[in-house]
Amino acid sequence: MPARGRLIALEGIDGCGKSTQAKAVASALGALVTHEPGATPLGAQLRRLLLDPDSDSAPVTPRAETLLMAADRAQHVAEVIEPALASGVWVVTDRYSASTIAYQGYGRELGGDGLAEVVAWATAGVEADLSVFVDVPVEVAATRGRGADRLERLGPAFAARVRDGFAAQAEAEPDRWLVVDGTRDVDAITAHIVDGVRARLGPEPEHGR
Amino acid sequence: MPARGRLIALEGIDGCGKSTQAKAVASALGALVTHEPGATPLGAQLRRLLLDPDSDSAPVTPRAETLLMAADRAQHVAEVIEPALASGVWVVTDRYSASTIAYQGYGRELGGDGLAEVVAWATAGVEADLSVFVDVPVEVAATRGRGADRLERLGPAFAARVRDGFAAQAEAEPDRWLVVDGTRDVDAITAHIVDGVRARLGPEPEHGR
Repeated sequence: MPARGRLIALEGIDGCGKSTQAKAVASALGALVTHEPGATPLGAQLRRLLLDPDSDSAPVTPRAETLLMAADRAQHVAEVIEPALASGVWVVTDRYSASTIAYQGYGRELGGDGLAEVVAWATAGVEADLSVFVDVPVEVAATRGRGADRLERLGPAFAARVRDGFAAQAEAEPDRWLVVDGTRDVDAITAHIVDGVRARLGPEPEHGR
Repeated sequence: MPARGRLIALEGIDGCGKSTQAKAVASALGALVTHEPGATPLGAQLRRLLLDPDSDSAPVTPRAETLLMAADRAQHVAEVIEPALASGVWVVTDRYSASTIAYQGYGRELGGDGLAEVVAWATAGVEADLSVFVDVPVEVAATRGRGADRLERLGPAFAARVRDGFAAQAEAEPDRWLVVDGTRDVDAITAHIVDGVRARLGPEPEHGR
């Protein structure tokens, strides 16, 4: 039986470059790359409810938004992440639990009132072995914007709270976080993350080499 | 400013008659009648994901199901229940928090692991002032079945666990629960519930009389 895989979460505000990095890091490590929200069929339906700015979707309160993000994650863990880890595969996910703490807890200001317990319950105990905070100033991220979704349209004050939320989590648990400067060259960031993952988690498994 | 309204939740297994009772009790008390899941526009979308047996909906794990039910409730509280209570209106809801404990905790066997905290977080502290368990034997409820939805199709062993879940909650907090025999005549049950509500919560407000 192979050793259990490791879960690496790339985290940061929209436009920080973590999606690009997730793919590059997964490729370098021979890992499965995935994302939240929306990586399962249920998740794709929830993502439309949550993020599509042009949909005729119903209003969603911050508390319901949090629980829908948690539902997306519960399904993601059960369908994608846990089966991969159990079979020895390493997984790189573009967003995980820390995003809910940052966006809904800090951004929506729902923190400090049992939110951490809700977020933990959703994953059934499957925590990221390492979270990587790809940090860029809010102004830099804003210039990289794609078509803004519902959360991205909330503006710079919201984005600043979310960034603070990631920074606070990284500071609170330095053994579980790697913070990288997201303003550097793309390849340099990838190399920094891959080196950091290996230093913290040991070498990746040799897949079919 | 009017006194804050009271929240009365009718609870029980599918086919116990609580939907009929919710309407009759609300009418007798001059209360707003509502239901879960699906009383808000978001909730209607979630209800389709959760319960429609003929939809092409994606698979939903028990943990995701729980969080979607909680999201429905969070939206229901924010849009419907809390505004009514704040304006002095009494509210009768067909299902509330106890249904998630019974169906997902006991039926799906997800209890005992932080579920109560997740359920409590969803409501932002808006608890039922009185929950009414309309109790019928599983075999009786089964004969009253409408077109069975996803949860109703889970069979008698599931329904028996759910019934046990309601009974356990009622036994644990007798001051917050009223248990009624759902096999009696419909009008007799309504009268019993209305009398019980007044005995526990005092007289309802006089709306426009």
